[in-house]
Amino acid sequence: MFFASDNTSGVAPQIMAALARANEGWQPGYGTEAAMTRVTALIREIFEAPGAAVCLVTTGTAANALALGLLTPPWGAVFCQTRAHIAEDECGAPEFYTHGAKLVLAGGDHGRIDPGALRAALAATGTGGVHGVQRGALSLTNVTEAGTVYTPAETAALAQLARDHGLPVHLDGARFANAVVATGASPADLTWRAGVDVLSFGGTKNGCMGVEAVVIFDPARAWEFELRRKRGGHLLSKHRYLSAQFEAYLTDGLWLDLAARANRAAARLAEGLARIPGVTQRHPVQANMMFPAWPAGTHERLRAMGAEYYQDDAGARLVTSWATSDEDIDRFLAAF
Amino acid sequence: MFFASDNTSGVAPQIMAALARANEGWQPGYGTEAAMTRVTALIREIFEAPGAAVCLVTTGTAANALALGLLTPPWGAVFCQTRAHIAEDECGAPEFYTHGAKLVLAGGDHGRIDPGALRAALAATGTGGVHGVQRGALSLTNVTEAGTVYTPAETAALAQLARDHGLPVHLDGARFANAVVATGASPADLTWRAGVDVLSFGGTKNGCMGVEAVVIFDPARAWEFELRRKRGGHLLSKHRYLSAQFEAYLTDGLWLDLAARANRAAARLAEGLARIPGVTQRHPVQANMMFPAWPAGTHERLRAMGAEYYQDDAGARLVTSWATSDEDIDRFLAAF
Amino acid sequence: MFFASDNTSGVAPQIMAALARANEGWQPGYGTEAAMTRVTALIREIFEAPGAAVCLVTTGTAANALALGLLTPPWGAVFCQTRAHIAEDECGAPEFYTHGAKLVLAGGDHGRIDPGALRAALAATGTGGVHGVQRGALSLTNVTEAGTVYTPAETAALAQLARDHGLPVHLDGARFANAVVATGASPADLTWRAGVDVLSFGGTKNGCMGVEAVVIFDPARAWEFELRRKRGGHLLSKHRYLSAQFEAYLTDGLWLDLAARANRAAARLAEGLARIPGVTQRHPVQANMMFPAWPAGTHERLRAMGAEYYQDDAGARLVTSWATSDEDIDRFLAAF
Amino acid sequence: MFFASDNTSGVAPQIMAALARANEGWQPGYGTEAAMTRVTALIREIFEAPGAAVCLVTTGTAANALALGLLTPPWGAVFCQTRAHIAEDECGAPEFYTHGAKLVLAGGDHGRIDPGALRAALAATGTGGVHGVQRGALSLTNVTEAGTVYTPAETAALAQLARDHGLPVHLDGARFANAVVATGASPADLTWRAGVDVLSFGGTKNGCMGVEAVVIFDPARAWEFELRRKRGGHLLSKHRYLSAQFEAYLTDGLWLDLAARANRAAARLAEGLARIPGVTQRHPVQANMMFPAWPAGTHERLRAMGAEYYQDDAGARLVTSWATSDEDIDRFLAAF
Repeated sequence: MFFASDNTSGVAPQIMAALARANEGWQPGYGTEAAMTRVTALIREIFEAPGAAVCLVTTGTAANALALGLLTPPWGAVFCQTRAHIAEDECGAPEFYTHGAKLVLAGGDHGRIDPGALRAALAATGTGGVHGVQRGALSLTNVTEAGTVYTPAETAALAQLARDHGLPVHLDGARFANAVVATGASPADLTWRAGVDVLSFGGTKNGCMGVEAVVIFDPARAWEFELRRKRGGHLLSKHRYLSAQFEAYLTDGLWLDLAARANRAAARLAEGLARIPGVTQRHPVQANMMFPAWPAGTHERLRAMGAEYYQDDAGARLVTSWATSDEDIDRFLAAF
Repeated sequence: MFFASDNTSGVAPQIMAALARANEGWQPGYGTEAAMTRVTALIREIFEAPGAAVCLVTTGTAANALALGLLTPPWGAVFCQTRAHIAEDECGAPEFYTHGAKLVLAGGDHGRIDPGALRAALAATGTGGVHGVQRGALSLTNVTEAGTVYTPAETAALAQLARDHGLPVHLDGARFANAVVATGASPADLTWRAGVDVLSFGGTKNGCMGVEAVVIFDPARAWEFELRRKRGGHLLSKHRYLSAQFEAYLTDGLWLDLAARANRAAARLAEGLARIPGVTQRHPVQANMMFPAWPAGTHERLRAMGAEYYQDDAGARLVTSWATSDEDIDRFLAAF
Repeated sequence: MFFASDNTSGVAPQIMAALARANEGWQPGYGTEAAMTRVTALIREIFEAPGAAVCLVTTGTAANALALGLLTPPWGAVFCQTRAHIAEDECGAPEFYTHGAKLVLAGGDHGRIDPGALRAALAATGTGGVHGVQRGALSLTNVTEAGTVYTPAETAALAQLARDHGLPVHLDGARFANAVVATGASPADLTWRAGVDVLSFGGTKNGCMGVEAVVIFDPARAWEFELRRKRGGHLLSKHRYLSAQFEAYLTDGLWLDLAARANRAAARLAEGLARIPGVTQRHPVQANMMFPAWPAGTHERLRAMGAEYYQDDAGARLVTSWATSDEDIDRFLAAF
Repeated sequence: MFFASDNTSGVAPQIMAALARANEGWQPGYGTEAAMTRVTALIREIFEAPGAAVCLVTTGTAANALALGLLTPPWGAVFCQTRAHIAEDECGAPEFYTHGAKLVLAGGDHGRIDPGALRAALAATGTGGVHGVQRGALSLTNVTEAGTVYTPAETAALAQLARDHGLPVHLDGARFANAVVATGASPADLTWRAGVDVLSFGGTKNGCMGVEAVVIFDPARAWEFELRRKRGGHLLSKHRYLSAQFEAYLTDGLWLDLAARANRAAARLAEGLARIPGVTQRHPVQANMMFPAWPAGTHERLRAMGAEYYQDDAGARLVTSWATSDEDIDRFLAAF
């Protein structure tokens, strides 16, 4: 009964197999291997973005922080949701990679940025001339930290507010596959067609071992990104093991299949919880993460049964993954 | 005939097997998995350093730059060899992670720092009061960039010069295993007993997929290192795949076996080259890397035969690895 | 009718005279001149802090940002009031000098940090282990941005909350003289006795030309501060013109006399405004700055009469200085 | 007998008078005062550069480091002379303001960069693809640290090498006035017509109290510079006292008169030394600084007579200023 995080699951067998295949023989490193060319081609096709540049790194924190470093100067403000991963869970990596940019928080329900809050934050920033920080970039997250998703239209509306102020847009897509599955939208509609400039496209949480693709829709910025990646120590020498993972991930729709399994598991779990008296959901369940609330004594019983998940003052966070079994879900529900 | 770099070879089968084993089930991440405790225990035992702290990262650049960030303030000078990897091949990662420390280069033959040159560099730095940068740290490399090694006594002599000025010592051991095999010295004698404070202990070039251990002999500094690692985006969520690699690497002396194979391959290659008229070595061959010189026309012939290696104005760099076969060596020699 | 800022006034005649005297002959620079020794001695005496170290810089932004760089690591959170100068008016200088620390805002009425809000901010920060930024330092401001003051007891209560978490305390005293006059408290009681570690002690707004003293109550930290100051380009070569200003400022209580004039001018202005129907004060008037509100049409009339001040949606900000004349105040009041 | 540095002299009377005049009344701050407009106009006229932007700061270190921050990315190499002030005397300020750029040293006689050495340094940098730092900017110094000057043609030849690689050019002109007087060249010929993009135009060493103008010949970069200046804490609130200094400095050729006095004093001193047996000059004397060598015992005698100057292993550094009197020079010469 493992609901602590999608990153506590293992690596999908197709990806393990790809790593084994990639292990044959000698290959040049640092992303010059042939597999990386194929990864770029796959991403361009999937995103309908023939010019996009792609760089692989091993963590979402690196992907996000490097992307923000690319998009905003040190004196820029990065607008993000109050509970965004970049604000709460990266130990200041965005500030490190941007050389000191300021995160400006915009609230909103259910992990989403409220357009009015963003409008107010934009209006209140950069108005002091040289005395205050300038507007820098907008960073969205889809799936959000509350487990909800943005539709293409919602993404575009927020991105447009940024664009109205000349700002570029970053999308933290650590769970991008789950968002694509949940919305049924095309990758292009959820990103560049909605105004996203750079995407952190997660693999790790969705069945990879440790790889995230940074998709830079304007290739003119790619070389600077590569320098930043190297300078950050994020250019792997045996890079073939990153490209092998991502190639397998994107082949035959594996990334969507894995995410669909995770989302279905969440739906099953949510449906089960809905039938249990006294259990409520604090946010709509739309992807593979949910935040139920239940009577105080419940935690103890669940823990005793071996359930693993994060707990907060108001309830729990349950995350499903491609590896979550129906048996685990049913055992968990039965524990109530 | 692959002599471009030890990082163009694959992953040793024992390590692939360990990754497969690590893939079973659900595990907590971020280094809290049980295997990481075993890695730390193994390193403490191998280094006879019961208090040492260990952190894993995926690249040597990250290991080095994070270590230097730990050891020197932004206004410190990092003393290193003229051709050190941190000076030439990391795109300024040390400057990034130290927030702007200055690398001060000390020359010496065959990739080693000459003690006199270090003494002079130390004497010339930090004498201008507040107007100049201060002495920060010493960074050594073993195996050096010229393929030579430092003995424990040589290491200790250089480290002592640093210590005389109150400076901590970093050792870039991207090829530390090869140095241990080449010198026959104990890991402790090559590191903390010789005055090394922090070691970048390489795995990637010697049969791992992508993992380096940063060994911090003074555990009081470990927490700060962990914060720096996270902030740099180098804390992997599915960390079990790093600890699995390193555990296998250290188990039953695999790390030494792999390095011994690489060093033996280099010896065989060097012996063969020594018998070829017109071929000379620019540096003593002591580990798994050599820098031969040969007549101008030779490169073309070797390339035509499919040999892969780095070439410079004065000759070639040939690197062997655990995977280098005798057949490849003999074919290469026959090509002359 | 100049109420835009205390920094739009000129330099007090005693300080101009000191600059003229300092201009005689040749003198060593960079703070090694004899006058700097006298400045340090004066500050030690005034603050009853025989071991304090003192460094002079030319701007409050430099004083604050350098102080915070000294007190917090890059991964630290600096707790400050929502509208603090370091948060709103320094274009990210604190983030620059700390190499990316995060400002965490704590609210409170009338420019003061509410102890409950600080307690909550402290409790909510640094609880995520290595994943979030750590608690770094507390930065207070006295006189606050709302023109109110902290008493020694209020300062001590907030500082104690910081100390309970092991945090050092910075005090932005750009208008410290006005706070001393307003509270009647001793400089020691308002600073180190209340738990302040480093004070930005302003001169510029209170009759100097451009000089702020950073008072470091723990002299063990002074050398690092000096390196940071030089590295920031804030060590003046002809430093005698800074020490001359500050020596005159501290001699015969000039700093208090000037602040008393500014505070008295504010009191006269506030009393006059209190008698005008429809004019209210948004914050208590305690030092030399006030935030009145008045009917919408009033601004136009005041501007037409030549009054200069900052205006916001809700009203005005009026600042008085040592140079504010009773005539100006009375003309201003008559304009209503 | 004060020859330690031109910054140990006082402020020229015309500039003190200008400060007194500037002290009248209330004025807006932060460079919005009317005098700053006049300073910009004067510089545009003197440099025949109608579009140039001008920012004032209080130290040469700030001027240089901010300029380099503007011109080079963090992964850029700044090419400069081996003994350049930015390399030796600024405690890493360039590294701080560039966020970690690397200074690459090019040698040459008498404080000048040898074109061949620069060509070699340029050729050796940025050739490693993403693995090494990239070429960033060229920084020249005129008057050089050895007291020599570059002619317009020499400046242009070096700048052209930089431009051939697409690099911008910075000129550290802490003693720019002395260089103009020494070469007889026009300010334009020594700067933008020779390929200089940004000039640090010194005032402090040449009779000002503490002000340097950063002249940005491409005004499109000015706004970014202003943000960097504020963020560095270098935007003075009572800015009128900077613009007053620089306006007086530029009015009626005062800056050239003061430099001519300093250069004449140096010539008188050098001529006298030339007549003293056993005294030689290590560098040509071309401006207001010289590096004589003399018998070992001489220092003691000179010090006993009260002479002040810097001493090194090989001899002395003597600097003259606008305030150096013939009497002092003659007394110094008589001491031999």
